[in-house]
Amino acid sequence: MNLSKVAEKLGITVDRLQSLQDTKISESSWPEPQLLRFDKEISGIEAGTVIFGNGEIVWGYPSIRRPLMLEAAIKRHFIDSVVVEEKMNGHNVRIASIDGDIVALTRGGFICPYSTEVAEKLLPEEIFEEMPGLVLCAEMVGPENPYVSSEAYPTDSIDLYLFDIAQKNRRGTLGVHKTHEIAERFGLKATAFFGEYPLKTAHERIKEIVIKLGRQGREGVVMKDPENRVAPLKYTSSESNCSDLEIAFRHYNDYALDFFLSRAVREGFQSVEWEESEEERRERARRIGESILFPLTETIKKKQQGETIAQRIQIRVKSLATARGFEYHLRRCGIRAIFDPPLPEDDGYTIGITKIIMSTNDKTEALLNGEMW
Amino acid sequence: MNLSKVAEKLGITVDRLQSLQDTKISESSWPEPQLLRFDKEISGIEAGTVIFGNGEIVWGYPSIRRPLMLEAAIKRHFIDSVVVEEKMNGHNVRIASIDGDIVALTRGGFICPYSTEVAEKLLPEEIFEEMPGLVLCAEMVGPENPYVSSEAYPTDSIDLYLFDIAQKNRRGTLGVHKTHEIAERFGLKATAFFGEYPLKTAHERIKEIVIKLGRQGREGVVMKDPENRVAPLKYTSSESNCSDLEIAFRHYNDYALDFFLSRAVREGFQSVEWEESEEERRERARRIGESILFPLTETIKKKQQGETIAQRIQIRVKSLATARGFEYHLRRCGIRAIFDPPLPEDDGYTIGITKIIMSTNDKTEALLNGEMW
Repeated sequence: MNLSKVAEKLGITVDRLQSLQDTKISESSWPEPQLLRFDKEISGIEAGTVIFGNGEIVWGYPSIRRPLMLEAAIKRHFIDSVVVEEKMNGHNVRIASIDGDIVALTRGGFICPYSTEVAEKLLPEEIFEEMPGLVLCAEMVGPENPYVSSEAYPTDSIDLYLFDIAQKNRRGTLGVHKTHEIAERFGLKATAFFGEYPLKTAHERIKEIVIKLGRQGREGVVMKDPENRVAPLKYTSSESNCSDLEIAFRHYNDYALDFFLSRAVREGFQSVEWEESEEERRERARRIGESILFPLTETIKKKQQGETIAQRIQIRVKSLATARGFEYHLRRCGIRAIFDPPLPEDDGYTIGITKIIMSTNDKTEALLNGEMW
Repeated sequence: MNLSKVAEKLGITVDRLQSLQDTKISESSWPEPQLLRFDKEISGIEAGTVIFGNGEIVWGYPSIRRPLMLEAAIKRHFIDSVVVEEKMNGHNVRIASIDGDIVALTRGGFICPYSTEVAEKLLPEEIFEEMPGLVLCAEMVGPENPYVSSEAYPTDSIDLYLFDIAQKNRRGTLGVHKTHEIAERFGLKATAFFGEYPLKTAHERIKEIVIKLGRQGREGVVMKDPENRVAPLKYTSSESNCSDLEIAFRHYNDYALDFFLSRAVREGFQSVEWEESEEERRERARRIGESILFPLTETIKKKQQGETIAQRIQIRVKSLATARGFEYHLRRCGIRAIFDPPLPEDDGYTIGITKIIMSTNDKTEALLNGEMW
């Protein structure tokens, strides 16, 4: 690797890069190609940024901030109009071609073998031949998404939706128009485009869109500047907030504490901004309460009946090497998962996976035995 | 102060005491008498333990642990029977006589001027004359409790209920029988005694008691070994858990994150242990949801209308020096409070106080203005 070239592209000195290499950047040699990962943001370089062995860089995708008061935030943040697209509920990947091989990077900058196989299957071959410098920023969604499984989208397996594009060795993304242009050109799906609205009325249309999406069990929207001049923002439906609560309370000891509070507070602000009637507010309160109590009692009863607190997921792979690779990948991410024997299918295998929710499992058992909180 | 005597009473070496004095023990010289406070538990000495200038020690009251599954915990923790008393919702103080003056210590080991005046007023003079070594462990409750105001008890001001007793310079407490004996002898109120129950059936009786207390807006119970052989445990009503949530969500940015989760999880375990019907569980979910959403929306709307997020409380004092002292005491505890001009009364003054809930106030204002979470 030519350190001085890499440092130049990152916008830091060689000395700084070398000292980071000794301390803050982790190396990952599997799966190939070998790479260096920025685990956290350092020196203004986004978390998840990756430097490959050949010196090519894929920048981390900046995290999207969330307003709680839609109207105020839109008027404050955007310039003249807002593009509204769907925020999909899956895991997002950056897909690039490195030395001729497709790799799908997770947010943290790991190559995920399963996501990589999915990308290889769903992307047309010519895309990276024609545009070798391209980085596709895409959401993977569907029931066979092993990170975030969802039935809300039109696939019975896993699908890929482009939401932005970037270029290797360059910071920043290319924004809405370029993304939909590339999607169209190569026949890729892109996240739904709901329109471009003037600042003054955007919040009203977004409210309608978000309510509709919520009813369909979908997550919410991302708001973007049409010319990519300011960073995008995100906003979610009440159903999505409550479904987050549901998942978190099902595994109440495995989630960060601010996860619980932030979802509830979102609901409070949405209820006020949308000037809900007493009845609507009571209905929302009911939804929140049930998203908390019902998964909690289910988890406790399950454990009481001697079951293990776990989550069942399923993946479909062409090659058993991908499954073995994914098993290793989950382990290095700190997730305990037990893989069923693979079931042969037309064009590969389906594999059931049991993710053990360790901490909630142990805590619930101890509390049931009369231990103190 | 005779360091070697103090160290001996604490059960540590003089060297250790001296090194703690330089690092972990804080001095408090106001109000008199001067004292040293153990801010946190160190070397097995409870947090809140206080060494007075004259060398006398008042030990911190050990915090009471909470089971989430009542039956299992009772059978596991207690020996043959359980005494059940009321857990009252106020602030607890340790009251002792030091060099002839009554002082009321907060949990953290500060002398609270207001609690001290209340204790002086409510305690019979002869108690510390007859028993100078006594430490009264008492809950102060009522609407004029400025820490935790509650209307659930039969007082329109503030009252004091004995729940345990200890002795100066001695570790440990004297337990149920001695406490009620002293209360009777000196005409003091003590926390309600609900009975002594065998291990096997105690949880059934406690369930009935807790449900009844909850309906009255009261907090719950403390379970004690009749002979004080093992530590007490506490258990609270659903109404108390939800009222905690209500207060916390009203001031959602001023509470520790685990406060929110722990209350919800208590509700989950109680619902399972009490084998609630679907309808009862739905009703509990509704209660939880409303305890979260309603105070949140009230706080947001209040701020939207330009009001300051604050809490109004009231105290009644004999002397204005007590009020000034209490103002200083709140400030050193990190609480921002604005005192109204005192209103003269029969035998002293009533003073309205506005406690500013700083962090929630600022955060809500920022979010309303379109800032991100």
